[in-house]
Amino acid sequence: MPQTYQQYLQEHREQHLKELFDFLKIPSISSLSEYKEDVRNAAEWLKAELEKTGMEHAEVMKTKGHPVVYADWLHADGKPTVLIYGHYDVQPVDPLNLWESDPFQPEIRDDKIYARGVSDDKGQIFMHVKAIDAFLQTDGKLPVNIKVLFEGEEEIGSPHLPAFVEEHKDLLAADLIVISDTGMPEKDKPTICYGLRGLCGLQINVKGATSDLHSGEYGGGVQNAATALVELLASFHDRDGKVLVEGFYDKVEELTAEEKEAFAKLQVDEEKLRKQLGVPELFGEKGYSYTERTSVRPTLEINGMQSGFTGEGLKTVLPSEAFAKMTCRLVPKQDPYEILELLKKHIHAHTPKGVTVTVTEFDKGYPYVTPLDHPAIQAAGRAYEKVYQVPVTYTRGGGSIPIVAAFDNILKLPVVLMGFALPTENAHAPNEHFHLENFGKGLETICAYWNELQTLIFS
Amino acid sequence: MPQTYQQYLQEHREQHLKELFDFLKIPSISSLSEYKEDVRNAAEWLKAELEKTGMEHAEVMKTKGHPVVYADWLHADGKPTVLIYGHYDVQPVDPLNLWESDPFQPEIRDDKIYARGVSDDKGQIFMHVKAIDAFLQTDGKLPVNIKVLFEGEEEIGSPHLPAFVEEHKDLLAADLIVISDTGMPEKDKPTICYGLRGLCGLQINVKGATSDLHSGEYGGGVQNAATALVELLASFHDRDGKVLVEGFYDKVEELTAEEKEAFAKLQVDEEKLRKQLGVPELFGEKGYSYTERTSVRPTLEINGMQSGFTGEGLKTVLPSEAFAKMTCRLVPKQDPYEILELLKKHIHAHTPKGVTVTVTEFDKGYPYVTPLDHPAIQAAGRAYEKVYQVPVTYTRGGGSIPIVAAFDNILKLPVVLMGFALPTENAHAPNEHFHLENFGKGLETICAYWNELQTLIFS
Repeated sequence: MPQTYQQYLQEHREQHLKELFDFLKIPSISSLSEYKEDVRNAAEWLKAELEKTGMEHAEVMKTKGHPVVYADWLHADGKPTVLIYGHYDVQPVDPLNLWESDPFQPEIRDDKIYARGVSDDKGQIFMHVKAIDAFLQTDGKLPVNIKVLFEGEEEIGSPHLPAFVEEHKDLLAADLIVISDTGMPEKDKPTICYGLRGLCGLQINVKGATSDLHSGEYGGGVQNAATALVELLASFHDRDGKVLVEGFYDKVEELTAEEKEAFAKLQVDEEKLRKQLGVPELFGEKGYSYTERTSVRPTLEINGMQSGFTGEGLKTVLPSEAFAKMTCRLVPKQDPYEILELLKKHIHAHTPKGVTVTVTEFDKGYPYVTPLDHPAIQAAGRAYEKVYQVPVTYTRGGGSIPIVAAFDNILKLPVVLMGFALPTENAHAPNEHFHLENFGKGLETICAYWNELQTLIFS
Repeated sequence: MPQTYQQYLQEHREQHLKELFDFLKIPSISSLSEYKEDVRNAAEWLKAELEKTGMEHAEVMKTKGHPVVYADWLHADGKPTVLIYGHYDVQPVDPLNLWESDPFQPEIRDDKIYARGVSDDKGQIFMHVKAIDAFLQTDGKLPVNIKVLFEGEEEIGSPHLPAFVEEHKDLLAADLIVISDTGMPEKDKPTICYGLRGLCGLQINVKGATSDLHSGEYGGGVQNAATALVELLASFHDRDGKVLVEGFYDKVEELTAEEKEAFAKLQVDEEKLRKQLGVPELFGEKGYSYTERTSVRPTLEINGMQSGFTGEGLKTVLPSEAFAKMTCRLVPKQDPYEILELLKKHIHAHTPKGVTVTVTEFDKGYPYVTPLDHPAIQAAGRAYEKVYQVPVTYTRGGGSIPIVAAFDNILKLPVVLMGFALPTENAHAPNEHFHLENFGKGLETICAYWNELQTLIFS
């Protein structure tokens, strides 16, 4: 009897982990120019892996920024075609001193793999490569047609991907898109994420005097750039977590009755979460539950700010400059371009006296939702339930994958988000990790999903 | 005919500048522990210079921190005894990249000496040493008895000096104290500073979650440490520059009628100042002139703040920490200890939900005023007018020299502040400098002052 994919995966577990470690060692940090070569190396590694697996037409394809990796296997006649999207780039690692091990020297501790990018997103796309490998090695064929599209700029907002997708529309034509770059709330609680928040970002620079001033000589005489910045930043929210930018909430869609029911099933143990996060209390927009606030309500967050003297001790200086970086998470039907205009209008109206303010825009990504009752969504639910042996829940994700809405707009395909990461795995923070248990179960779930999909017919 | 002090000073100008440059080259930064040896070296250099001049009992005296330099010349029987105070320590230099020349390699450009500490305070105390030198070399004696007390901790709030002064009360007994660590508004507008603002400082640390969080996953669910900090900081002022801390202004003394008249004579060209500082407009506490705001009104300033990601580009992180450093300039009769308690009470009452706040206190210094009509003040006015050939103005300084109030409390002496620095000389900032013209005129003014003082009788 030929080997099953489960047997193959179990037998080759050690080898697969070794290969994953090789992938994780490449510091493919897309946001910092000094890692440009490493990003390319990661693309080349991935292409070679796909070729070894048996995928065809594997190629590292140019863009105006970091390259895209493509490959396909299109011999499942009459079966659906799945486009798998993921990213091989990773977040920066700072603050480095908070990592317990080298972010680019993967380690296994307590049944978790520790490395930058293992959860977001290399571990997850690697599982897709190995799932393909498992079928081709055991069955000689895939249950469905597969195309992979792995980009290197997701962490910087996928600036060149929409143009790439537009340019290669025919190459990328498929019946649905599957993305594994999200998560489940807890280890044994599989979730299908059927929506994502959008994103927009900007930097505010405040300028006072030509240079820093002596706070005795000039203090009281001119506006302090730091004071002006905090006044401006404080104008963005009320004390109950609501964003005060005029028009911000105008286009926000309320949940459907069905969604409200599904959300009620998402039990979050708030006290447990509070302790785990180490905060005195959870906090956010008044009138909404924790789950709603982190998935279906928009936010405006300060990601970083700096002004004046921040070294040891005291320096009686009146800062002449101050800046803050901010991002919004958006929900349907907010438009990131429109929100940025509203933010700029608010900044303009609230700029304190005595300083000048400049605004630089960053990334923009649209929010996204696939209808809950789509057959591809329901098939994914069945795949999870088969492997995890518990009912799957349906959730809308708090994070953003800007390209999802671009796929929707350009390729007009349903998107299925099947993630295996956990919120505790420190994505974007020090000591990022991935549970080995989900590595194993994720591989099987993906394989189960291809089996489920082969029976569906897409119009 | 023996040489006059004016002739001596002119003849030895080049040599004196060379000696000053040697003094300036020593990076005596008191706030940074890695310069501890340099601070000591500056003290030793100063002691040697005083000995060369002919001062007696020159000594580098221990304190719990950086040492104090003492010396005296007490042979002017029946004449007043002057205690000259100054400091040989300097501010840190960051941001270094904004300096046009090495802060510790003095240069003369456009008739100005550029170096850290040349204006605040080494250039000024050096002039005192050379004035003593001029008298002893030309006349063999000083017109008054002189004691010098040069400390190494003024830039960090003189923490050990009050105890030192208390311990050496008899050694430091005198009829008045003269301090050259302040300035005049413009090059040809000599000013006697008869009051100083006090100082207190603190650092606010805000803590949210245990670590930085992914802003998609958690944004909206917990308080953002940066947002909490800006809310707290914004609560300190109204939009018209007034400090909102309860009780802050309670003990502030209004100006006397005589002072109001003297202040009216201090014509500040606000448009010229605005252009010079490069601000869109001057700004401060509503209802008070620029001069009042920078000298007789108290302030609360943010000196620095930082949170989250401040590097290149964007990072969608929800910061778990944020801090700000703040200082107040105080006026009579505000008490720095009391003000710190009021600030802490305000912080406590305004701490936003979902974070914890810790406060660390820094320096404390009392505000100070010598009556305008004191004979020593009037004598200093005559000395300035003799050299500068224009009427002197009387002003209250914006800056703080914390030890002044300690001198008042412990030694019970009138303090005469005769400064020669200019507000444009970048004290506490990059490219600090000192005008050669004031170097020359300052030397002569000090000499003229000793001559004026020798006829006064102190009870």
